[in-house]
Amino acid sequence: MRRAQYAWEEKIRRTAARPGIINLGGGLPSAAQFPRADLAAAFRRVIGPGQTDALQYGWAEGEHQLRQWVAARLAARGARVTADDVIVTNGAQQAIGIAADLVLRKGDAVGVEPASYPAALEQLRARGFKLTTLGHGRAAYVMPGINNPTGQPFSAQSMAAVRASGAWIIEDDAYGELKFDGRLAPLLLAQLPRRTLHVGTLSKTLCPGLRVGWLVVPPSLRRRARELKENDDLQANSLTQAIAGDYLRGIDFDRRLQRLRRFYLARATRLTREVKKALPSWRFVFPQGGFSVWVDTGAAVLERRFAEIALDEGVSFDSGSAFVAAPATSGSKSALLRLCFSSVPPARFAEGARRLARAWARVQRASPSKRRRR
Amino acid sequence: MRRAQYAWEEKIRRTAARPGIINLGGGLPSAAQFPRADLAAAFRRVIGPGQTDALQYGWAEGEHQLRQWVAARLAARGARVTADDVIVTNGAQQAIGIAADLVLRKGDAVGVEPASYPAALEQLRARGFKLTTLGHGRAAYVMPGINNPTGQPFSAQSMAAVRASGAWIIEDDAYGELKFDGRLAPLLLAQLPRRTLHVGTLSKTLCPGLRVGWLVVPPSLRRRARELKENDDLQANSLTQAIAGDYLRGIDFDRRLQRLRRFYLARATRLTREVKKALPSWRFVFPQGGFSVWVDTGAAVLERRFAEIALDEGVSFDSGSAFVAAPATSGSKSALLRLCFSSVPPARFAEGARRLARAWARVQRASPSKRRRR
Repeated sequence: MRRAQYAWEEKIRRTAARPGIINLGGGLPSAAQFPRADLAAAFRRVIGPGQTDALQYGWAEGEHQLRQWVAARLAARGARVTADDVIVTNGAQQAIGIAADLVLRKGDAVGVEPASYPAALEQLRARGFKLTTLGHGRAAYVMPGINNPTGQPFSAQSMAAVRASGAWIIEDDAYGELKFDGRLAPLLLAQLPRRTLHVGTLSKTLCPGLRVGWLVVPPSLRRRARELKENDDLQANSLTQAIAGDYLRGIDFDRRLQRLRRFYLARATRLTREVKKALPSWRFVFPQGGFSVWVDTGAAVLERRFAEIALDEGVSFDSGSAFVAAPATSGSKSALLRLCFSSVPPARFAEGARRLARAWARVQRASPSKRRRR
Repeated sequence: MRRAQYAWEEKIRRTAARPGIINLGGGLPSAAQFPRADLAAAFRRVIGPGQTDALQYGWAEGEHQLRQWVAARLAARGARVTADDVIVTNGAQQAIGIAADLVLRKGDAVGVEPASYPAALEQLRARGFKLTTLGHGRAAYVMPGINNPTGQPFSAQSMAAVRASGAWIIEDDAYGELKFDGRLAPLLLAQLPRRTLHVGTLSKTLCPGLRVGWLVVPPSLRRRARELKENDDLQANSLTQAIAGDYLRGIDFDRRLQRLRRFYLARATRLTREVKKALPSWRFVFPQGGFSVWVDTGAAVLERRFAEIALDEGVSFDSGSAFVAAPATSGSKSALLRLCFSSVPPARFAEGARRLARAWARVQRASPSKRRRR
């Protein structure tokens, strides 16, 4: 069942990458925000005369300069963290996997938000953990800063559930710093340090291609975390760690974040305006950060059929079911979907929304009798 | 027990990295062989005007150009492989882990050579697989081209055991192309394609810091392999894949290999000459390839004690027990060790051997009564 789902999603993703398709799925950062010249300068420095560390083996926990930067950023947000607490990982995804393996055994349950990051959900399932609602389970996987896909910070209920449960917390802060108003919620790592395993990444705020993420764990789990990382793949990429470390040392990252927030807020504003215009029956809460808006279409259509018709119309999006661990908790049987405003040029938003509307009209007409079968 | 071992090895490794220590352990390639200028040129091309793919998300299976290169190299060695069969991994280590998870279940046994690569052995143990002698178990993990640590190609016995068993084969070819005479043995992937999972890497022939490895699996396992990779960490590094792909397209890799073989053969010749001079009682078979020589000291000393005294004398090596899955199969109770000639400048070999000899004399004198306790 999952396998078939996977194959289908995969097919949709590949098709969506074709030229001409307006791809409102994927969650990619805007390539216009990649600091190519600055990264090239950093590369020249780390690979300059006599420099070979960036091409050689390194330590399992990662490059020191980069770990210091991560620690300093987290410390500035109130967490008691030093470079020794940070393990550099191959993106946030690997950090989530190591965190889960540190505190869970096969068969354990993990509480997740009503909508959450599909690759994390899939990874947790693949490792043999059961997904359940927040407040239950031996651990919680959450994105309290800014949730993907909703773009909203943690609700008071979610916070209360996590606080009360006493379970381990895997805090995924991938989008946290991209809260548009810049008023970041306190980290769970700062509030509940003894049971929080913190996951971060440069994928959303710098470039995903560098594959630089990190994991911060309580001291009692540190050695084991390092062993798991080493067993997995020895170490993170020496070269891109060196480039990132050098680049980050030389720039004002908070200024970069301010620019990114304005940039993505402007895109969120434009995309949602076009969607409202073209599809007034769709409902969503305007995102407070991140790359996407989480839409409730208000009608029960066959998700797969809609995605296929949309591709036929030349537009793509992320179907909602991949984000929902337990459909029963979603409180809705209508089709949900994630629309990303992050990487498509805004000049195409209006046309994208029109194509979505045409596809929506077609799928509504196509199989009214099947509406309840989902 | 394993944990204590791990902590000790780690301490030794860190100490060995100190300046002044002649580190004959580690298995690092020579930084003198990193093509820094060519990689820099490749970097400039992949990050040039309008180019952003190298910084963006990519596909789980990896970058197409690089996969084509890998497939062409393997095809030239008689394997029926296309780019579709290749998954780029975060070094060979991740490829080994994915391969094991594809064909083994917790508790299954894996046959390994009498001496083998410690990080693979440790990873297999950590995943809950039991290590056994070659010819037994549900799979075999082998380095048939050139074994690490022995530097020898597969023995006829090992080949017969693997052929007869019918088990899955994880073929680790990390050092295979560094056989000094350039007469490479046929790949198991070419001979037994239906049950061989092939692992390769650029770590020994280009640079480990790029973390570019690959896994080739039979078609029936391909989709699952891709899922495992995606669940682990989404994808390999976009930037270093792009750099490697661009660099490899532009060079004559066989000429590079010829140069590397001459380079490492010269180092092997010099180190073994110095070791013979300083420690005539030690026994080894001259390596046919790779980075190291596998030494049988002929005396049962406390391994840990020897390593500590050696560090005190200013020299380091890799203790043998980490390479031996089942000490009973080693056929010897005398201390074994791996000496790497790959990364230390040869001008220091004579002094390194003299330090080893001093340490060896001290450890022999120190605790004769403890000789049998190992």
